[in-house]
Amino acid sequence: MAFRFDLQAVDGRARYGKISTLHGEFETPIFMPVGTRATIKGVTSQHLRDMKAKIILGNTYHLTLRPGDELIRDVGGLHRFMDWQQPILTDSGGFQIFSLGHLRRLTDEGAVFKSHLDGTLLELTPEKAVKIQENLGSDIAMVLDECPSANSTDEEIQIAVNRTILWAKRSLQSQRSGTQSLFAIVQGGMNLKYRQFCAEELVKLDFPGYALGGFSVGESPEQMHALLPECASMLPELKPRYLMGVGRPIDLLEAVDAGIDMFDCVMPTRNGRNGMAFTNRGIVRLRNSMHQREMLAIQSDCSCYCCQTTSRAYIHHLLHCDEMLGGILVSLHNLHFYLELMQECREAIREQRFQQFRQQCLAQWALAV
Amino acid sequence: MAFRFDLQAVDGRARYGKISTLHGEFETPIFMPVGTRATIKGVTSQHLRDMKAKIILGNTYHLTLRPGDELIRDVGGLHRFMDWQQPILTDSGGFQIFSLGHLRRLTDEGAVFKSHLDGTLLELTPEKAVKIQENLGSDIAMVLDECPSANSTDEEIQIAVNRTILWAKRSLQSQRSGTQSLFAIVQGGMNLKYRQFCAEELVKLDFPGYALGGFSVGESPEQMHALLPECASMLPELKPRYLMGVGRPIDLLEAVDAGIDMFDCVMPTRNGRNGMAFTNRGIVRLRNSMHQREMLAIQSDCSCYCCQTTSRAYIHHLLHCDEMLGGILVSLHNLHFYLELMQECREAIREQRFQQFRQQCLAQWALAV
Repeated sequence: MAFRFDLQAVDGRARYGKISTLHGEFETPIFMPVGTRATIKGVTSQHLRDMKAKIILGNTYHLTLRPGDELIRDVGGLHRFMDWQQPILTDSGGFQIFSLGHLRRLTDEGAVFKSHLDGTLLELTPEKAVKIQENLGSDIAMVLDECPSANSTDEEIQIAVNRTILWAKRSLQSQRSGTQSLFAIVQGGMNLKYRQFCAEELVKLDFPGYALGGFSVGESPEQMHALLPECASMLPELKPRYLMGVGRPIDLLEAVDAGIDMFDCVMPTRNGRNGMAFTNRGIVRLRNSMHQREMLAIQSDCSCYCCQTTSRAYIHHLLHCDEMLGGILVSLHNLHFYLELMQECREAIREQRFQQFRQQCLAQWALAV
Repeated sequence: MAFRFDLQAVDGRARYGKISTLHGEFETPIFMPVGTRATIKGVTSQHLRDMKAKIILGNTYHLTLRPGDELIRDVGGLHRFMDWQQPILTDSGGFQIFSLGHLRRLTDEGAVFKSHLDGTLLELTPEKAVKIQENLGSDIAMVLDECPSANSTDEEIQIAVNRTILWAKRSLQSQRSGTQSLFAIVQGGMNLKYRQFCAEELVKLDFPGYALGGFSVGESPEQMHALLPECASMLPELKPRYLMGVGRPIDLLEAVDAGIDMFDCVMPTRNGRNGMAFTNRGIVRLRNSMHQREMLAIQSDCSCYCCQTTSRAYIHHLLHCDEMLGGILVSLHNLHFYLELMQECREAIREQRFQQFRQQCLAQWALAV
């Protein structure tokens, strides 16, 4: 088996573990930088290695449109294509299709949608999503799911849950790869009853890992934080748990506290490009004129490339000139911050002091800089 | 003296030398990556160190507008501001004011022009240009000059030459720094008589280095190539010669052959962002569909980061998705190509085989890839 998860320590609900894949192993809790189109925006693969990223994300929907999953297969797979020889997880495209809104039509068979690029009518089925991800050659693939929005009716959620279970079964059946692991996705909106049903049905199918989908889709952070411990506890103890598309540092911390192991989010890079930095003393908005003459780093005690070489004044200048290096430098810092936060969580869990660490983070982040 | 030029070998008209400054020494012929606004677009200072860049450019006009030269002085100078502890040359802003066209008014006193950012009326005099560059703290500063366009009348060229000489004198007189070297700029359009007069007058003033301005402003490359040997020979043998703002690899090669020592140009980065790569087998346009499935590097035998880690297919994909990493990777390759070309010129001159090297380059570059 290429895939293996070892739960090595537990502190309260928080977990420390190790995941092995064909392309190497990594420790959890882990943050995965998002490389939707086979690139983490503005960041080279060397930057990612330097900041000790261990696993990154690619996206089925975007990569099948451009450059095409068969092209990527033909040129040796996504790892080689994007110069990343460590683990890769690919998202199934379910969330992207959900985001297309009126551009899509869902049936039990699959999703028919219009390409956001040229309006071409395309179809994505659970089987196709598996096939595409096998072409991409990722280490971990996600099943196609239906993600209901936060204001869906109970009936809509029920349909989405049933479809998600049906599609998970068909995904498993269509799997051909012996080295790629398929994770199931639990849906059910903010309704614990549906979440429970969905989780139970999916757990019966014995996937190597389970994700929580349908969070950060419009509900309040408090609502999400409140639901996570119960949702995590519905999942098998000895399998990795992945909270998809979440979120701010505080969301990751609360989710680790709830027993989640894996995370991805575009915030470090998207907000970085807009000049918003995450620090151990809270948010720093580098476009703000207060930073114009500030020769201190974004975070003085940070060991990232950006903080070791440049000042807030320099980044402020670059952002105001629309120089891409500004957004790149803040992205590098933010990714490092997320990776370091997970590293500190892992240490705290191993040393049985996670609550203490969590309280300390919450207190520090509340400070404004 | 912080500044020193040692001419160490001559092969025909081509020269190999060493320049020492307060921030270190470098060999010539040299190419200087252009960091107009205190950043080489999309390229980190670590990238520049990795590709063995030795001296980079900043720009008086752009930096005095944003973030302001006094701000840069107050935060410790341009080297510290942009994390570059090796030599920096700053352009005087003369060429930028020339480019503003109707937004400027020139008198013997100086240039009055409208900021391209907000239309504010600003004045740049020779004295101010020196003061600004002393605030920036560059190792080599350029005098303010008047650059006539390629289709100027003789009378216009004569006025520009006289003003350039007058301004050079006033620049020298206003210089206060003991560590910054001021280079003069020879103008005179395509008219050798005016060039000769301008060079003679400036040489009398005994500047530590001399530049040729007013090339690549609309004349044909052949016209420029034909004039360069004579223009270079008007300059002192034992002082560095800098051809401003030029050009394509072939232009650099011909200029080295004419006896030029220093170069800067935005082409490697500007063209790089548009997907045009310079290689030892000619130009490669990476947006072209022929590269869609090409797993070879931009240049197979190139040691740059881009060629060592990625393929034409990957860069083609990034460019078509408007992902900034595409332009960054080609910029890295192109800068490396220019730096390497100069490195090879230096070796060839030292080993007295420059003509052979030049002929070989011209033959190889004519091939299309």
